[in-house]
Amino acid sequence: MTKRVFNFNPGPSTLPLSVLEKIQGELLDYRGSGMSIMESSHRSPQYDEVNESAMALTRELFGLSDDYHVLFLTGGASQQFAMIPMNFLKQGQTASYVDTGTWSAKAIKEAQVIGETHVAFSGKAGEYKHIPVDDELDVPANAAYLHITTNNTIKGTQFHHTPKVGVPLIADMSSDIGSMQRDHARYSMIYAGAQKNLGSAGVTLVAMRDELLQQSNDSLPTVLNYKTQAGKKSLYNTPPSFPIYVMNLVLEWIKEQGGVAAVEKVNAQKKDLIYGMIDEHPNFFKGTVEEAGRSWMNITLRLPNEELEKKFIAEAKEAGLIGLKGHRSVGGVRISLYNAMPLAGAQAARDFMQEFMSRV
Amino acid sequence: MTKRVFNFNPGPSTLPLSVLEKIQGELLDYRGSGMSIMESSHRSPQYDEVNESAMALTRELFGLSDDYHVLFLTGGASQQFAMIPMNFLKQGQTASYVDTGTWSAKAIKEAQVIGETHVAFSGKAGEYKHIPVDDELDVPANAAYLHITTNNTIKGTQFHHTPKVGVPLIADMSSDIGSMQRDHARYSMIYAGAQKNLGSAGVTLVAMRDELLQQSNDSLPTVLNYKTQAGKKSLYNTPPSFPIYVMNLVLEWIKEQGGVAAVEKVNAQKKDLIYGMIDEHPNFFKGTVEEAGRSWMNITLRLPNEELEKKFIAEAKEAGLIGLKGHRSVGGVRISLYNAMPLAGAQAARDFMQEFMSRV
Repeated sequence: MTKRVFNFNPGPSTLPLSVLEKIQGELLDYRGSGMSIMESSHRSPQYDEVNESAMALTRELFGLSDDYHVLFLTGGASQQFAMIPMNFLKQGQTASYVDTGTWSAKAIKEAQVIGETHVAFSGKAGEYKHIPVDDELDVPANAAYLHITTNNTIKGTQFHHTPKVGVPLIADMSSDIGSMQRDHARYSMIYAGAQKNLGSAGVTLVAMRDELLQQSNDSLPTVLNYKTQAGKKSLYNTPPSFPIYVMNLVLEWIKEQGGVAAVEKVNAQKKDLIYGMIDEHPNFFKGTVEEAGRSWMNITLRLPNEELEKKFIAEAKEAGLIGLKGHRSVGGVRISLYNAMPLAGAQAARDFMQEFMSRV
Repeated sequence: MTKRVFNFNPGPSTLPLSVLEKIQGELLDYRGSGMSIMESSHRSPQYDEVNESAMALTRELFGLSDDYHVLFLTGGASQQFAMIPMNFLKQGQTASYVDTGTWSAKAIKEAQVIGETHVAFSGKAGEYKHIPVDDELDVPANAAYLHITTNNTIKGTQFHHTPKVGVPLIADMSSDIGSMQRDHARYSMIYAGAQKNLGSAGVTLVAMRDELLQQSNDSLPTVLNYKTQAGKKSLYNTPPSFPIYVMNLVLEWIKEQGGVAAVEKVNAQKKDLIYGMIDEHPNFFKGTVEEAGRSWMNITLRLPNEELEKKFIAEAKEAGLIGLKGHRSVGGVRISLYNAMPLAGAQAARDFMQEFMSRV
C-alpha cells in the first residue's frame, strides 16, 4: 500500500500528490504517444508542447511581459552564481550584493572570482537575523546590478518587499518563488532551482528582461552565455526534459489553485499556525530571527536545549513528520512549508509541537 | 490501455520497459520512505544509496579502478565541451581534437574560445565518412589532451578502436557508452549525456583519472571546476537526483543483462539485421559511410530519392516505428539502435525495410 508522510525537507521537498499521480499515470505512454515523456525527443511535438506551456505559465503566473525571456537551465542556483557575473560584470563596474546568509555569501564568492564586488548590506554581524530596508543598502553608482536572495532556507529569513534601486535588480528566488505575490516586473532577472517550490531537482528557471540579456558577454563559452538558450527557447542542446515536464505540471497546479495569490493565502495560514505557536510559547519555542524578516517558507526555531531538539526531531519523524532538523550549520529545528505542503501538514506540525511541549 | 511503440529517436530515446515500470511502481512511495525519490532530500539515506550505487555500477560495468572519479554533472556534453578546455588547457599547451562531425566540431569551437586549438584529424573534406586510424592522427607534442567523439549520431560513424597516443585521451561517449566493450582504462576521461544509452536527459556521466583531475584550473568559478564535485561525491549542490536515479536503474539493467559484453552481443545482432539489409540491397538502401567506421548505434542511409525517404519515414511511423528521420543537416533515414532497443525492434525495422522495398 502507498504510504505518504508529511515531508518538511528544505529541498528537494514535497510535491503535490495530484502531480505525482499524473506523472505516474502517463509514465509508460505519454498521452497516446506510445512512449514516456522521458523517452521523447526534445524536438518532438509532445515535448515542444511541454516547453511552450512551461514558458507561457511562467509568464502568466508571475505577470511577466514579453520583455522577459524565460529559460530552463541546469546546474542549480550555484551555476547562476557564476553565470551572472560572467555575463553581466564588466570592466569598470562593480557587482553589488546583499548578504543575508549562506546562499548570498556563495553568490558573492563567485562574483569575486570574476571582478570587482561590493557588499551593499551584510547581515553577518547581526547573525543574519535581519532583512535590510532600502535605507540600509549602499549600492555603488557603478553597480552592474544588485543581487538579493529573497528567502534564506538556512537562516529562516525572507524579503517581504522589493528593494527600490537605480540599477538592475537580480534575485535568487530558489526557495520562495511562487509562494507570495511580488512585483516581478521590478526585477531584471529572477532565478530559481526547481526543487523547492517548482518541482524536482535538475532544472533552474530563469526569467530576464531583454534589456539585461543584451548586456551578456559574448566572449564566453557558448553554454555559459545567456543568449545561447534565449535564442533557442532553451533547446540549444538537449534540455533536462523530464524535470521541465514536472515543473510544467507544478505550474499548472499553481494555476489550478487560483494562481500565486491563492497559494499565498494558504501559505499565510500555514505560517500563522507555526509562528502562532512560537509567539504563544516563547519560553519553549524560540524563533531565531527578527519578526519583520521571518520566512514563510522555512521557519527556524530553537527548543530549550539541544537534547529536547533531538528528541523533538526524532519523535516527529516517528509520527510521520519528516525533515524537521535545522541545517547542520545552525542546528535547531526547521519547518519548511513550501507551496506543496498542504494546510493539514502545517496543522499536524502545530499539533505535534503542542503535544510535545505539554508532555516533556 | 498502455500503448508502446518502437522508438528509434536519436536521443532522448527508448528506455527499458522494466526500468519504466519500476519507476512507475515506486513513484509515490519510494521503497517505504513515504515519499517519491523526487521529493527526497539529496542528503537523505535513500538518495545517498542511489548516488553510491550509480558510482559503484559505473566503475564495475566499465572496469574503472579507484583511480577514477565518477561524477554526475549537468548541462549535457555541450557543457563538457566548455569545461574540458577551461580546466585542462593551459598557457603554452595546445588542445588537440579529432573532428569526425557535428559534435566534434562543437567541442573544437569551445576550445578555441579558451586557448590554442589544433585539429589532429578532420573528416570534413571526406564528408565525415571515415574514422581515422592512429597513423592519420597528427597530435602536437605540447597537446594537453586528445579529444575524440566515439560515436557520431548525425553522421553515423563510430570508433571501433581506442587511439594509442602519448597524451591524455578524452572521449565524448554520449551516444555509445555501454554499448560495446572498450578498454576504458586507456581514457583519462570519458563523458556522456545520459539520454541515449544511460537514461533520461538532465545528467552527464563523467569519469576521470585522478591524475587528470589534479590538473584542473583552480581559478575557475566553483561549479565549473571538476574538483568541486569530485571532492563532494557530486553533492556540492543539489544534484539532478531523479535523472541520476533513472540512470542508476539503467546501469542495474545493464548488469542484469550480463554487463556490457552481453549488451554488446545483442547490439551486434541488431546492427547486423539492418546493415545486412543495406548490403544485400545496395541499389535501394545506400549506406552513407565507410564500412570500417559504421556506427552500431545510429545507422544512416539514403533511399533512391527524397520522395521515397519521406514515404518510408511516414509509413514506418504509421506502423509504430517512430523517429526514423535523418538529422535535418544530412537528410535521409537514421535508425538508432541504442542499448534499450530490443532485438524485436531491429527485426521490425528490417521487416519494414523489406516490405517497403518490395512494395514501392
